[in-house]
Amino acid sequence: MSTASHSKFRITVPATSANIGPGFDVLGVAFSLYLTLDCERLPAGSPMQMTYEGEGAKDVPLVAEKNLITKTALYVLSTYGIHSLPPLKIHVTNPIPLGRGLGSSGSAVVAGVILANAAGELKMSNDRMLDYCLMVERHPDNVAPALFGGFVASFLRELDPEEQEPSSIPRSEPTRNGAAQPPTPVMDIGHYIQLGWNQDIKAVAVIPDFEVATEDARAALPDMYTRADVIYNLQRIAVLTSALSRKPVNADLIHKAMADKVHQPYRKHLIPGLSEMLETITPKTHPGVVGICLSGAGPTILVLATENFDKIAEAVQEIFSRQPNGGYKSMFKVLDVVTDGAQTQYFD
Amino acid sequence: MSTASHSKFRITVPATSANIGPGFDVLGVAFSLYLTLDCERLPAGSPMQMTYEGEGAKDVPLVAEKNLITKTALYVLSTYGIHSLPPLKIHVTNPIPLGRGLGSSGSAVVAGVILANAAGELKMSNDRMLDYCLMVERHPDNVAPALFGGFVASFLRELDPEEQEPSSIPRSEPTRNGAAQPPTPVMDIGHYIQLGWNQDIKAVAVIPDFEVATEDARAALPDMYTRADVIYNLQRIAVLTSALSRKPVNADLIHKAMADKVHQPYRKHLIPGLSEMLETITPKTHPGVVGICLSGAGPTILVLATENFDKIAEAVQEIFSRQPNGGYKSMFKVLDVVTDGAQTQYFD
Repeated sequence: MSTASHSKFRITVPATSANIGPGFDVLGVAFSLYLTLDCERLPAGSPMQMTYEGEGAKDVPLVAEKNLITKTALYVLSTYGIHSLPPLKIHVTNPIPLGRGLGSSGSAVVAGVILANAAGELKMSNDRMLDYCLMVERHPDNVAPALFGGFVASFLRELDPEEQEPSSIPRSEPTRNGAAQPPTPVMDIGHYIQLGWNQDIKAVAVIPDFEVATEDARAALPDMYTRADVIYNLQRIAVLTSALSRKPVNADLIHKAMADKVHQPYRKHLIPGLSEMLETITPKTHPGVVGICLSGAGPTILVLATENFDKIAEAVQEIFSRQPNGGYKSMFKVLDVVTDGAQTQYFD
Repeated sequence: MSTASHSKFRITVPATSANIGPGFDVLGVAFSLYLTLDCERLPAGSPMQMTYEGEGAKDVPLVAEKNLITKTALYVLSTYGIHSLPPLKIHVTNPIPLGRGLGSSGSAVVAGVILANAAGELKMSNDRMLDYCLMVERHPDNVAPALFGGFVASFLRELDPEEQEPSSIPRSEPTRNGAAQPPTPVMDIGHYIQLGWNQDIKAVAVIPDFEVATEDARAALPDMYTRADVIYNLQRIAVLTSALSRKPVNADLIHKAMADKVHQPYRKHLIPGLSEMLETITPKTHPGVVGICLSGAGPTILVLATENFDKIAEAVQEIFSRQPNGGYKSMFKVLDVVTDGAQTQYFD
């Protein structure tokens, strides 16, 4: 049955967390919190109608060429020679806080690629959709779990010299001004593996009411690392990736293997309270805790846990609340790690 | 049944390879190639009798205080207040080439700790034996797989300031001259996890007829690494550790995830031909190849493969043979990755 026979479809894309523990730019995980696009085809010639509710509703632009979802879809379609979005009514429901380290941009990019695939009936494979995502968002650690689900390790392959580098989405609007045809991705840019995850382990995401700009978080990192610090992270990531799949949960091993010397120590000044949280919220002090780390570049704190989720979240919140200058308010979400990634459901 | 009722016992310890691909100082694997100690208790007061056959037979000292196996055993026993080896006849059979990157020292240290445990009836757990091994040989990536078997990721935990650092075996002979009591290890120095391994993957070890001194291999490494190189290895080790367990074998993914920027590029001058081997022996050029890396600090080349083992080995040998100044002779062994680690069998 051709997708063209469907007048309505719904795209759901999970939120993600990247940089898990020692896995800076490597490990990502998909959560039971979904960016949702409810789409309805309109008669030919109709203008796009876009509505939006949830996180970012005040600020997110709803113009096709500016909204990250539709801008991404336009890019994908243009590489197929389709220079505008098919007429659609799109309602976006977004529960993913923006700029807090829960992969909102990555989920939007994935949603855009899937929107292009569904609306344009492109019949791309998931792996091909990953190539497109990586042309827009170079780091696979958010987009791979958003697309495929679960706990994912990923890397970009080294491109041959004659191949085009993946790059951010072309800034020139591809449909206007006779701009150069945007680049079609080379094949198989991203490599990934879905790791096991013990479903007894849930994620407590504590989200404070401030943002960390990705550029600031990147700029805080050193250019060079000592050999000892390199080995430190290599050892822990090798243990962590398997330890999180094992039953029963070995909280002590996982907690030790969640330690990181590559990004968190350099970002402490951007997330007041982080040092104290990492030092004082442990399996011993807070039963149920399995591990703790920054989610993405922060400021969200991710605590992996098997029980006492609310209590653990409150311990993190308490530390946020008593930071200098009045501290920070925060909210928390207790999330499952979901095995399924982005989905498209067709109706009618 | 007490071990004291046994007059004979046999200790077997597998050879190992460390630094697998991106896993410098992290990943090790145990092979179907065993250092064997055949031991027989002698009447009280008898002097130790030690004989030795196999690799290193010409050079390995057979004096209790100098041989690495018995020296290690003496150290362990001395921490229990036992200041000499119980009277034993020990015959060592060693098929593990020395100084070639197949963990001969690590296997000897493991054999020594187990020898102390068996001869002194110390009833140590495997985890406690690992602590002792790590007091002698600080790097767990060889001793952990030798002791536990399989494919192992490991790290040393960070010791509390009041705890003693693991260090190399005390140079002062612990039984003589009123030397200070050697340090008893703190508990749980090493953390490790046994990773999965698809048994369809075998290891082809190509062993050239030259040695690389561990000190030279260490000295070749830089003190600092770029962030890009750090991320490169973190990404690949996270994929590799799980990819090697999956069925069917994904040779392309594993081969890419075996790439390394932390140690191999800096050791190329120590192992003539290494660059060419890494570049030209791939799953595409040599069907059956799954991955290729240096074994330990070299010079042994480890090729993971599912078929065509001899052909693959010959391709490596051919490159060794045509290096400058007459090239290098080499031998090869096709090895299984063994799930069982060191064993003690009691007889009589």
